[in-house]
Amino acid sequence: MQDTTHLSGVIAPVLTPFAEDGGPDTDRFIEHCEWLLEDGCTALAPFGTTSEGPSLGLDERMELLEDMIEAGIDPARLMPGTGAPSLADAIVLTQHAVDLGCAGALVLPPYFFKQPDTEGLYRYYAELIEEVGDHRLRLYLYHIPQMTTVPITLELIDRLVSEYPDEIVGLKDSSGDMANTLRVIEAFPDLAVFPASESFLIEGMKHGAAGCISATANVQARAIRSLYDQADSEVAASLQARVAEVRAAIQKAPTIPGLKALIAHYRNDPQWLVVRPPLVAMEAAEQARLVDDLQREVDFSIPIAIEAG
Amino acid sequence: MQDTTHLSGVIAPVLTPFAEDGGPDTDRFIEHCEWLLEDGCTALAPFGTTSEGPSLGLDERMELLEDMIEAGIDPARLMPGTGAPSLADAIVLTQHAVDLGCAGALVLPPYFFKQPDTEGLYRYYAELIEEVGDHRLRLYLYHIPQMTTVPITLELIDRLVSEYPDEIVGLKDSSGDMANTLRVIEAFPDLAVFPASESFLIEGMKHGAAGCISATANVQARAIRSLYDQADSEVAASLQARVAEVRAAIQKAPTIPGLKALIAHYRNDPQWLVVRPPLVAMEAAEQARLVDDLQREVDFSIPIAIEAG
Repeated sequence: MQDTTHLSGVIAPVLTPFAEDGGPDTDRFIEHCEWLLEDGCTALAPFGTTSEGPSLGLDERMELLEDMIEAGIDPARLMPGTGAPSLADAIVLTQHAVDLGCAGALVLPPYFFKQPDTEGLYRYYAELIEEVGDHRLRLYLYHIPQMTTVPITLELIDRLVSEYPDEIVGLKDSSGDMANTLRVIEAFPDLAVFPASESFLIEGMKHGAAGCISATANVQARAIRSLYDQADSEVAASLQARVAEVRAAIQKAPTIPGLKALIAHYRNDPQWLVVRPPLVAMEAAEQARLVDDLQREVDFSIPIAIEAG
Repeated sequence: MQDTTHLSGVIAPVLTPFAEDGGPDTDRFIEHCEWLLEDGCTALAPFGTTSEGPSLGLDERMELLEDMIEAGIDPARLMPGTGAPSLADAIVLTQHAVDLGCAGALVLPPYFFKQPDTEGLYRYYAELIEEVGDHRLRLYLYHIPQMTTVPITLELIDRLVSEYPDEIVGLKDSSGDMANTLRVIEAFPDLAVFPASESFLIEGMKHGAAGCISATANVQARAIRSLYDQADSEVAASLQARVAEVRAAIQKAPTIPGLKALIAHYRNDPQWLVVRPPLVAMEAAEQARLVDDLQREVDFSIPIAIEAG
């Protein structure tokens, strides 16, 4: 029998701070990772979209992952993004993550060529799995069509789980389309399916979602974890409303610069404002408005976790 | 005064053959490159879209480029694609190409994040130029919005050439929108602008285009070169019609698998059929139809060059 171990719970796609020289800021990164785990994240997904993962170099991604583990972060709680437009690069990154003992790898479809055949996408993932050739590989498909333009369809999932039931263990659905998330869960009840928003956490969990992998877990992990732990309780609805309210306030701003602006503000650390091109940091006035919006509109009876960090 | 040397003429975005082990087939690649130069190409643009460049790994791209030059191909005739979604990776590839003495680098915009601000794209290219920090760098912007979803706008070009007139020397316009090509030429007469199709070569050259960088130069370089050399002669119109006819016949099939199928057929070498996922090779019946189409519809009074290879 296969080992169907997979990750679950509240997973943060960790923001990547940059240093003054333009490279990833390893110390701030590790500090943020450790804080997220203390604050309630069950696992971390570095090098996802929120992490500006596709803007990081191959070497940068591998070095940061090594740094995390050397700093004492348990690879059993890590699901790094290891996708790339090039199958060759994806093999290098995925093998590296498996070799380091990571619990999973979150893999984008190749996103340069448009409207690829399902057959071509199937072969991409199949060759990745075959070339990595390691029984420890646990692969999570990454559905984010608004960025990739290449959806992970039910037909593709079906072909992959039929051929690779041990390796294809989950899917992150960043489409924002809860109906799609529920269709995937219904069609593939053995997959660990993660919506990318905590705003649907209770509804998702009722239907069998494994948790969520949410950008805003970077600033409200504790509140989301509290909701996750009390999903069956009578306070769930009000906790759910509260985390959704925080998320909505944050999403008035561009997500990644906005989250970085919040961390820069609450940690009083302007180095956190830096994003890598093609993203652009928010103007000071926009940053102030975001902070104000959150303080005015949000019920802080559970403070957003970053304040306590 | 700056050295405004730039490439011109008929440039092939070289197809990348793959070996049985799935990696690039170096011997077939070099052989094809040498044949293209003999057949009339003024320069080569490896690792573009037709080359399945974004599907190649960072190491694969650098090794193939080294192999070309070691095989005796003059780097003064090379414009490798060195773009990547990650600025860090693009710096590595571009620096490598410059170090090898390549005449130019063809650089895609970062294509993961959608609708980036012009400011963010400007900073991407500016940081690339600054980090490479080499006066030999000659950068060609790569406009192919149907793949990247990120256009190279006139506003972006204007900002870049204003700040980096020595480094930003040209643009490949793969949009297929001749009106856009003409707008770029008109606005930036000092840029070497290449439409991606030989079908507009005469019209483009009349307005100041530097030549073309065309996928189908992989199979009809000689005819395109003949047209380029006689662009002002009275036979230009009929030569233009003929190369356009060949291109149109080829484009009934998916471009990259179709071109590979033609080479596999005319060289009697089925290994050329292989494409890398997410692309998929054509079915045998489709291949046969493509060859038939070309032989039936096209006037071969100038044979397509591959037959003579």
